[in-house]
Amino acid sequence: MKKLYDVMIIGSGAAGMTASIYTARKNLKTLVISMDVGGQTAVPSKIENYPGFEEVNGLELMNKFQAQAMKCGAEMISGKVVKINKKESLFEIKLASGVNYESRAVILAFGKTPRSLGVPGEDKFMGRGVSICVTCDAPLYRGKTVVVVGGGNSALGGALELSQIAKKVYLMHRRDEFRGDEIEAERVNKQENIELLLSTVPIEVKGDKFVEGLIVENVNTKEQRTLEVDGVFVEIGFKVDSDFLTGLVDRNELNEVIINEKHETSQPGIFAAGDVTTVLFKQTVISAGDGAKAALQCHHYLTGGEGRIVSDWDH
Amino acid sequence: MKKLYDVMIIGSGAAGMTASIYTARKNLKTLVISMDVGGQTAVPSKIENYPGFEEVNGLELMNKFQAQAMKCGAEMISGKVVKINKKESLFEIKLASGVNYESRAVILAFGKTPRSLGVPGEDKFMGRGVSICVTCDAPLYRGKTVVVVGGGNSALGGALELSQIAKKVYLMHRRDEFRGDEIEAERVNKQENIELLLSTVPIEVKGDKFVEGLIVENVNTKEQRTLEVDGVFVEIGFKVDSDFLTGLVDRNELNEVIINEKHETSQPGIFAAGDVTTVLFKQTVISAGDGAKAALQCHHYLTGGEGRIVSDWDH
Repeated sequence: MKKLYDVMIIGSGAAGMTASIYTARKNLKTLVISMDVGGQTAVPSKIENYPGFEEVNGLELMNKFQAQAMKCGAEMISGKVVKINKKESLFEIKLASGVNYESRAVILAFGKTPRSLGVPGEDKFMGRGVSICVTCDAPLYRGKTVVVVGGGNSALGGALELSQIAKKVYLMHRRDEFRGDEIEAERVNKQENIELLLSTVPIEVKGDKFVEGLIVENVNTKEQRTLEVDGVFVEIGFKVDSDFLTGLVDRNELNEVIINEKHETSQPGIFAAGDVTTVLFKQTVISAGDGAKAALQCHHYLTGGEGRIVSDWDH
Repeated sequence: MKKLYDVMIIGSGAAGMTASIYTARKNLKTLVISMDVGGQTAVPSKIENYPGFEEVNGLELMNKFQAQAMKCGAEMISGKVVKINKKESLFEIKLASGVNYESRAVILAFGKTPRSLGVPGEDKFMGRGVSICVTCDAPLYRGKTVVVVGGGNSALGGALELSQIAKKVYLMHRRDEFRGDEIEAERVNKQENIELLLSTVPIEVKGDKFVEGLIVENVNTKEQRTLEVDGVFVEIGFKVDSDFLTGLVDRNELNEVIINEKHETSQPGIFAAGDVTTVLFKQTVISAGDGAKAALQCHHYLTGGEGRIVSDWDH
């Protein structure tokens, strides 16, 4: 059995939830489908740069987004989209569960997924000392020694959070400087139990039943050493899992969905916003703003509008 | 005496304040200069589509933005920019007060200003029955009869707000249908003391010391009549006051600052975001997201970065 919606939004992060607030307020029958709640914004324990909240827990913020979308009339289900087929003027959306939906338009907003190190031992010890979520797993390492791999804000923030719990934190990055905000880098520098290892890459995760060490290599000297650690936190960025869109919308070499300034994809009726797109910056407030743009453009498409949109400008 | 900043942000609405949160967090010496606090977002008494707040007063929301920016280290002054001159690698910013500043980069985020009806009597009765701010002036019309001119969300929302206070509200619009959100239009239709006048334009505001009536004309029949009203609320959109930028950055026929997808203007070192730009939608969350984009691109420019930005993506 198929259910027909005006708009199907794939992804429940900042872009998807904001898009659903906007389409639902336009009285478009809206279904959000997602494998999680809140996307990447839900991961960090503390967000300081979403305007309106001086400091907020990521999951708490995304729960607010979701409640607001529900209040506006959006529906939401849990599921994994495996295929989207164009059928005349509709799109058929197939879920892994076997359930199918039909929708007049689609907004792609399923973001990105954490990248892995790709070294021996990583998969073997995943969940047994290797972690991709500081917020989730930090409490398990009280009084222990851990290493955080990565150089962006999530690595810096993760190291800081762990430094409050663990005895010692190594923060290692393959480049010779960090890429996160200066304000975060300064905090890391002030923290006495964080030791920085720059120009260093992981070689192998070692252990028996649980992680016991990480072999690392200096990229300049090629010298190797073993860090004796109980935990390895992987914070090295993300990839876009968009293979199911092959043949439907154009993507770039990073698998990001290519959009124009109207948030249209190469397929009429399919729009996109947030980290899944070619947008240069992956930030909560940016995804939220772009989710609203995609939603308003989608409404314009569904109501047969053409030309310059003047709805909230030239009354 | 001139003071040197890394970034000077003109405007304190959602775009400007978000930009300042982001530049200040990047440790760029940031000055926000503005004629008001909060731009257009500060005007409405109730906002329901800024994600994270199911319902929030506009000014209250913008006060939160401002407090957050101050906490991050941004400075803020009140003033009107009358000229920006390019001086070698710096920009000289002249204020109406005679004070000058110098900045390495500029972010234009000063939004738009309300448009006037341009009919006889409007200026004469401004503040004496003619209003451009429902939120500010609605309480003055308890038990009286008013007319709201306009067809977008601000007109619909204004009519609803006034219908709770005034005895009767006319809502008139020059087109044959409203352009605001359906959810707002439905609420208006359900409100018994709101009378809709479509395809109708204002001709003249009449009165003695205060407004006593508004002459209106049906655009199809050319028939004129006088609405006996105590108040005329003008909610017909906005214009961009950007003449002081002539010769500095390219603008379009609406005087909006032309930007590319990186939020760069035609002048290197000058970025723009929010309602002042060619962005299609004028919404708080969109301005906030684009303010963040402009700020991050500005940081990239000031730190000598080139090519694709990978800071928060490819760690």
